[in-house]
Amino acid sequence: MRVTADLSMSLDGYITGPGDNVEQPLGEGGERLHEWIYGLEAWRERHGLEGGTSDEDGAIFDEAFRDTRAVVMGRRMFDVGDPHWGDEPPFRVPVFVVTHDAHETVLKQGGTSYTFVTDGIESALAQARQAAGDGNVSVSGGANVVGQFLAAGLLDEIQIHIVPVLLGGGVRLFERIGGEAISLEQARVVASPTVTHLKFRVARTSGP
Amino acid sequence: MRVTADLSMSLDGYITGPGDNVEQPLGEGGERLHEWIYGLEAWRERHGLEGGTSDEDGAIFDEAFRDTRAVVMGRRMFDVGDPHWGDEPPFRVPVFVVTHDAHETVLKQGGTSYTFVTDGIESALAQARQAAGDGNVSVSGGANVVGQFLAAGLLDEIQIHIVPVLLGGGVRLFERIGGEAISLEQARVVASPTVTHLKFRVARTSGP
Repeated sequence: MRVTADLSMSLDGYITGPGDNVEQPLGEGGERLHEWIYGLEAWRERHGLEGGTSDEDGAIFDEAFRDTRAVVMGRRMFDVGDPHWGDEPPFRVPVFVVTHDAHETVLKQGGTSYTFVTDGIESALAQARQAAGDGNVSVSGGANVVGQFLAAGLLDEIQIHIVPVLLGGGVRLFERIGGEAISLEQARVVASPTVTHLKFRVARTSGP
Repeated sequence: MRVTADLSMSLDGYITGPGDNVEQPLGEGGERLHEWIYGLEAWRERHGLEGGTSDEDGAIFDEAFRDTRAVVMGRRMFDVGDPHWGDEPPFRVPVFVVTHDAHETVLKQGGTSYTFVTDGIESALAQARQAAGDGNVSVSGGANVVGQFLAAGLLDEIQIHIVPVLLGGGVRLFERIGGEAISLEQARVVASPTVTHLKFRVARTSGP
């Protein structure tokens, strides 16, 4: 099993546009980052929709989800996303939310559950690992939690979908990770006409 | 003729490591960003050195220089780079330095000249265009000048060489460009084992 992260990022490093909130979870112009996903059959199926395309981007998207058996995310991503994900969220696996506020586990339809973890990312990862069994744990975001995982040497793999736009503002994926430079190893590059998928292995420096 | 920019950038968006200065022009760890270049025959030849490799990275590097007939750069890049470039700088074409301080043109060996332009990027570009004739004008950097060209809609093409490292600090390429989001169009993606070359066309919004 591996601990992975998969994020769509503008060429200038943003994973949302400026002014993200519950009404506009991706900020101004941030929908542009996910445009490559919305038409995909694999995405539409997860959201209970029919039709869509099945191309190289679809294969990348599908691969990222296929082996994921548990998800870790930050509280802010959860708060902003929850109203949109609704009663049958697209994760379809146990989700562990890193937060300061205790809350009972919430069971949703279609296999998603939300468990709130108040004692940090290592505890969230341990619980996610247990839930995932032989499958992968995906760190969904936001930037803060992905940064914590990187700084703690807990990510095995990170895939960045680089979208050809300069947003000029928003939430940066790589902000204040701190510490030493982190060396990555290019694992795979796939380019479609509208997005480039860069997958890297991360040298693990610590963790279980 | 086109106006181009070519920069090596870490996955987290830096074109230098932390603490760049004359002694350490690429900052701490920033040499990592140019490692893919140092062994290339095309680079070594420009620096008066023999030997080197000639592979897909070499072809990308060579292409970027081949059609360049004039260079525009910022004053800070010039100040930091000049002692290292020496009496026979690798540009081998007229270089226009955007600065607040007037200075006579400096002629170097091997075809490089440094002309200091005190009335802004549009003037520097006009002079560079005239010098370039049918060739391209390359905006070499730093981040500030590239950002000014982008914001003014004066770049036709930008190629980013993404190096698989998270530097965690330094000079960000895309910082405070401001204004509207800028849409790019993927023109080409070439991946070698150690670096990914992403070339984009920029929608020109103004300029001559």
